[in-house]
Amino acid sequence: MQRWHQTIGRIESIDFSLAARTQDRLDHLTKPQGSLGRLEELAKQIVEITKNDAPQIRNKVIFTMAGDHGIAKEGVSAFPPEVTTQMVYNFLQRGAGINVLAEHVGARVVVVDMGVAADLHPHPELLARKIGYGTRNILYGPAMTRDEAIRSVETGMEVFEAELQRGVDLAGTGEMGIGNTTPSSAIAAVITGRAIEDVTGKGTGIDDKTLAHKIDVIKRIIAANQPNPEDALDVLQKIGGYEIGGLVGVILAAASKRVPVVIDGFISGAAALLACRWEPKAKDYLIAAHCSVERGHKIILDYLGLEPLLHLDLRLGEGTGAALGMSLVEAAVKILMQMATFQSASVSERMDR
Amino acid sequence: MQRWHQTIGRIESIDFSLAARTQDRLDHLTKPQGSLGRLEELAKQIVEITKNDAPQIRNKVIFTMAGDHGIAKEGVSAFPPEVTTQMVYNFLQRGAGINVLAEHVGARVVVVDMGVAADLHPHPELLARKIGYGTRNILYGPAMTRDEAIRSVETGMEVFEAELQRGVDLAGTGEMGIGNTTPSSAIAAVITGRAIEDVTGKGTGIDDKTLAHKIDVIKRIIAANQPNPEDALDVLQKIGGYEIGGLVGVILAAASKRVPVVIDGFISGAAALLACRWEPKAKDYLIAAHCSVERGHKIILDYLGLEPLLHLDLRLGEGTGAALGMSLVEAAVKILMQMATFQSASVSERMDR
Repeated sequence: MQRWHQTIGRIESIDFSLAARTQDRLDHLTKPQGSLGRLEELAKQIVEITKNDAPQIRNKVIFTMAGDHGIAKEGVSAFPPEVTTQMVYNFLQRGAGINVLAEHVGARVVVVDMGVAADLHPHPELLARKIGYGTRNILYGPAMTRDEAIRSVETGMEVFEAELQRGVDLAGTGEMGIGNTTPSSAIAAVITGRAIEDVTGKGTGIDDKTLAHKIDVIKRIIAANQPNPEDALDVLQKIGGYEIGGLVGVILAAASKRVPVVIDGFISGAAALLACRWEPKAKDYLIAAHCSVERGHKIILDYLGLEPLLHLDLRLGEGTGAALGMSLVEAAVKILMQMATFQSASVSERMDR
Repeated sequence: MQRWHQTIGRIESIDFSLAARTQDRLDHLTKPQGSLGRLEELAKQIVEITKNDAPQIRNKVIFTMAGDHGIAKEGVSAFPPEVTTQMVYNFLQRGAGINVLAEHVGARVVVVDMGVAADLHPHPELLARKIGYGTRNILYGPAMTRDEAIRSVETGMEVFEAELQRGVDLAGTGEMGIGNTTPSSAIAAVITGRAIEDVTGKGTGIDDKTLAHKIDVIKRIIAANQPNPEDALDVLQKIGGYEIGGLVGVILAAASKRVPVVIDGFISGAAALLACRWEPKAKDYLIAAHCSVERGHKIILDYLGLEPLLHLDLRLGEGTGAALGMSLVEAAVKILMQMATFQSASVSERMDR
């Protein structure tokens, strides 16, 4: 756990002293003060996170991590488990939603096999970092060993740090894993303390009867595993997933390098809950892309104190919402960096100034 | 009014028969059905509007129309009237918010002098279509003559149609005019029938005392002019603005050519109210980019039955919100056109299908 402790140890509190200077600069741009609303808030957050008062978003990178789940056998998803593997190939062939939206916003997608339950064909754009062939069925015991849980997080950290060499000015999270809303709901219930019914939704689109079954399954999962809410590693090991652990690592590594992270949907939110349980300072590095229709996502965002940028009724995952959110963050930075000031454009200021 | 009547006469009802086919296609893309939420709705709307089941958004064009307002003399704005002229120059030098955001999303901006109260220096990118040197002070009578009102709308139509020759797959509205939230609030009150207090906000950022004064001014404006809510031309002539009339023309011309229009903020919303009063069929061609913090914008959107895409607390105008919304529309079309199907990507469908 050396890398882990080193990484977490490097996460610094955000320095808010730059905010006033950035606000002053925003207030001199040729627009009424505050009239770009959340874009102005985002611009300030990026300056604070990066400690750079002239930020640029050149490299936007979405980490789409894939893993399978033993629990998928229990009829908690509308799709068969082999779809995880098939969708990884779809990512590599650039046919998935995340490929289209990442291309649209000019982001690159890093596809990582964290724990798909099949041997994947090698591909130049696939990072083969398999920790295991899918998690164990968490209805009957822990998802993974403690060592696997540590390795999943440290692998996420390594993947982020390797990518940082190529440039990452803005990170996004994404995932693929049939069945992974079930562990995510379990994590959300355990960490936030909310009722399982409040944080369990229809995932890829199950019916009401299957939802009732899923809620029952999650109750049994938590009863069987008794994860300790104060110990994020215990929660990840017992009721998590390899891709979820990987995203925890990405989030913590990004925060340790002062790189802002745009969080996608419900599963990414569960990873963010775990990351912030480890190191609450990580929270200030997070930007919530959107509020999913997946029940429980809003509870996660409220718990983390994050206000989502978009409300588009998305529930796909993969990083699709993150891609759209990253474009708004980039827009915010461009506003700060590229707009003329009242003085440079010879525009009169308010009459009362 | 020949152009006007011809244009309005060409606006067709939307053919919803393509929706089912597009939905079927969306349902075969490699994602859970409906999981891209509003992006899927947008994709269907674009197919219906364009009557093209393989739409492409190559040319995104924002029409930013400028005009001055005699009412600005009455202390209803935080900024002096000369800012309208100064900001037009800022648009042409690409230093304004709309320039930065249009560039970010790959849209071109068409800057039109519809009625700025100064002789502007010629510029290759400025369309000089001045109807008058600012409107008259609507506290004491109509904003413009009936002929000017007709010409402002027809000029907007001409500008759109000329631009269509260069390609417009998606239009956006934008405006600049110190004082123009005052006529927009008056228009919103008259057309929607809501109380002036409900549709009058702080514009560029006036204080509470000035807001009370602004509300009083608008009451006197409506009392002095007695516009007929059933007659959009009467409303435009008496309490409108040249840039507002121009945007009415852009909206109606776009609808007549089956080009979708992304509506920006409060002033654009007032133009949309007038356009839809003339021809209610135009409404189906509109997409609301965002909900502004300007009080009354939500009332306009509700009245038109439009659900905004973004909630970013914007209140700048110029087309800034439209630019961001247009990028989401483009994303939606790319989802429809570029994603792989379950069959093409060899991905298993739902187990219950």
